[in-house]
Amino acid sequence: MSYGNFAVAQSGGPTAAINATLCGVIEGAFLKGRKIYGGINGILGVINDNFTDLNVTFSNLDNMQLLKNTPSAYLGSCRYKLPPVESNPEIYENIFANFEKRNITMFIYIGGNDSMDTVTKLSAYAKEHNKNVCVVGVPKTIDNDLMGTDHTPGFGSAAKFVATTVSEIARDCAVYADKSITIVEIMGRNAGWLTAASVLARSKTSSAPHLIYLPERPLSAEKLISDVENCPARNMVIAVSEGIKTPDGNYFSNMECLAGHDEFGHAQLSGSARVVENILKEHFGRKTRSIELNVLQRCGSHFASLCDLNESVKIGKAGAISASEGKSGIVMGFERSNTKYYSTKIIENEVCDVANLEKTVPDKFISPCGKDVTEEFIKYCKPLIMGEPIITTKDGIPKHIALKIKK
Amino acid sequence: MSYGNFAVAQSGGPTAAINATLCGVIEGAFLKGRKIYGGINGILGVINDNFTDLNVTFSNLDNMQLLKNTPSAYLGSCRYKLPPVESNPEIYENIFANFEKRNITMFIYIGGNDSMDTVTKLSAYAKEHNKNVCVVGVPKTIDNDLMGTDHTPGFGSAAKFVATTVSEIARDCAVYADKSITIVEIMGRNAGWLTAASVLARSKTSSAPHLIYLPERPLSAEKLISDVENCPARNMVIAVSEGIKTPDGNYFSNMECLAGHDEFGHAQLSGSARVVENILKEHFGRKTRSIELNVLQRCGSHFASLCDLNESVKIGKAGAISASEGKSGIVMGFERSNTKYYSTKIIENEVCDVANLEKTVPDKFISPCGKDVTEEFIKYCKPLIMGEPIITTKDGIPKHIALKIKK
Repeated sequence: MSYGNFAVAQSGGPTAAINATLCGVIEGAFLKGRKIYGGINGILGVINDNFTDLNVTFSNLDNMQLLKNTPSAYLGSCRYKLPPVESNPEIYENIFANFEKRNITMFIYIGGNDSMDTVTKLSAYAKEHNKNVCVVGVPKTIDNDLMGTDHTPGFGSAAKFVATTVSEIARDCAVYADKSITIVEIMGRNAGWLTAASVLARSKTSSAPHLIYLPERPLSAEKLISDVENCPARNMVIAVSEGIKTPDGNYFSNMECLAGHDEFGHAQLSGSARVVENILKEHFGRKTRSIELNVLQRCGSHFASLCDLNESVKIGKAGAISASEGKSGIVMGFERSNTKYYSTKIIENEVCDVANLEKTVPDKFISPCGKDVTEEFIKYCKPLIMGEPIITTKDGIPKHIALKIKK
Repeated sequence: MSYGNFAVAQSGGPTAAINATLCGVIEGAFLKGRKIYGGINGILGVINDNFTDLNVTFSNLDNMQLLKNTPSAYLGSCRYKLPPVESNPEIYENIFANFEKRNITMFIYIGGNDSMDTVTKLSAYAKEHNKNVCVVGVPKTIDNDLMGTDHTPGFGSAAKFVATTVSEIARDCAVYADKSITIVEIMGRNAGWLTAASVLARSKTSSAPHLIYLPERPLSAEKLISDVENCPARNMVIAVSEGIKTPDGNYFSNMECLAGHDEFGHAQLSGSARVVENILKEHFGRKTRSIELNVLQRCGSHFASLCDLNESVKIGKAGAISASEGKSGIVMGFERSNTKYYSTKIIENEVCDVANLEKTVPDKFISPCGKDVTEEFIKYCKPLIMGEPIITTKDGIPKHIALKIKK
């Protein structure tokens, strides 16, 4: 058992649910009767002793409710990778000195697979140096590409945004009598989960998206043209991942412009839909348009998935409780029950089984034709987008809560 | 008084409220105890005798409710401009023969300023040729650029989408500690109403958008750079209209690529945000990103403005009633009451005072600095985005109603 205070920080790209997870961690700390501090801008706040006191603000339940429905990271984020302890021991000494100063013995880090690298390093350091700090990771990412969990918090809301928006775009495309092609570009670097979720736009009254291309399957210009040629729809909608690749392994987006790299060495992508648009426009000569959903898919919280938000609170709370039980070097996850109705339980993974790994869409979820997803995927994904939160508005737009940040 | 049946058609770009107006027209017809037919793909359906019977489907109130919340045009749309009667009298004879066939004596055309050209021509033809058909226009456009009305149906929902989305993007931008600039491109060819509405994203917890550029004011690269230089925000959000122009009158978007023209001779724009991004990236070297809201701003009905939807129903119904009273060659509009609380009454305009004209944002709504809008604009715009409809969902996404169209 751990009897000190809690610290929590958020890392990686924002989602519509990462603040719901923060709610859960705060709830867990309150349940244990402990103080909780928030590190500003992820691990950077911990390194620089830049904390905010979360106790007063969130003892107000209205604020807690607002936090649950506020998109992006309340505490700010970072994309900072801790150096190996050998090369820079001072950073680690700093971090644990800052923890000690506030009697912090439990640290919850909310983030994606890169952020779990920080959990690995900190928990290993604490163990080796006999520091009384339990370090627990709680996953978040719209990409749904983390190991050790049925799905990730944040994915359901992004999936709901994508499916809803594609269903609306399909209505928009269908108004004119002329044939047209609309390409929607969806986030997901090497894992096509979110692009796959566009399938949920299909309904009794719409068969869009008519083609779905994931980065898990190579796509040639010839196959693309042939797939479009064989599609009977008058107003086609095509969902493409930002990360679709040619058969020789090049990103489509590379065809247009040289891609940069982020701090973790991942290629920075944009423009795959534009490349598909150009290929199809040139070949078919019909009206062709591309739409990039951009950051809207990760910050669109006004129509979030209630299932996702509720689960995000639950997993955050479970993370805090696990830390208070003395667990360290673990990452929380969801396990789906094998029953008729959807339900999940929270599990703990060793961080080494999660950090720096990537879970792509498995074969069973991708149609053999390489242009669609399977019924099994639909069954997997559908429960994750269910329900809508009640949104508090002020003057017609959703009300958010924000930490006063230094300019 | 007119004792035949009704016809209705939808024209121009889709909005989230054009189907609410269709609901109103249908309600008006039902109120008068008359049959109502829908022309498929605007005036083209009337020319080609392609009608659907709206009476059975919408005597079901559940369908009516679904129609109110379904984005885009249920009856399809067109961008067809009627030729002058002198050059092609057959088309006109055709149209009125098709009306006569179904005993249609009242025709309601829902559309923007271009569509009102059709109302002008048909009502003039009916008058000159003694045809017993009253032709009434009901406005719709997200652009809010129609004369003879305080605002247009469809604008409020688009404005709410823009303000909500910009408020969410602002949260997303604010997570990292580094300075950044995000440029959001908003629709509006020569009128900056929708871009101006981004101001409603500002709240107690966010001052984004920090700069607002409308096509009504020229913008030089020097002014842009100087405005950004003088803005203290760490994570800036800039709202730009797709139609912003340089001091010598060129569209920003022209700088990047050659623009095409639509059937009415308007330049087809895209990419002004990308041009602004490139200018700022080169000058400041900070993280700079551009986001095009694209068609999402006109078809995003899952968070529409209830004020807009309700008013859209009301104006559609009023249009049907005016036609049944023998009025023709008119376009319906809203007049705002001059009282403390927001309310509107429906008025009738002569179509010649509306068709082919464009209402840009007046000086009183634009700040003298040319980078913001005034308090007076905020006061004007705020009521239009109030309230949210209750959305019926199926499997987690909004349910729509659709007409079975021929592929």
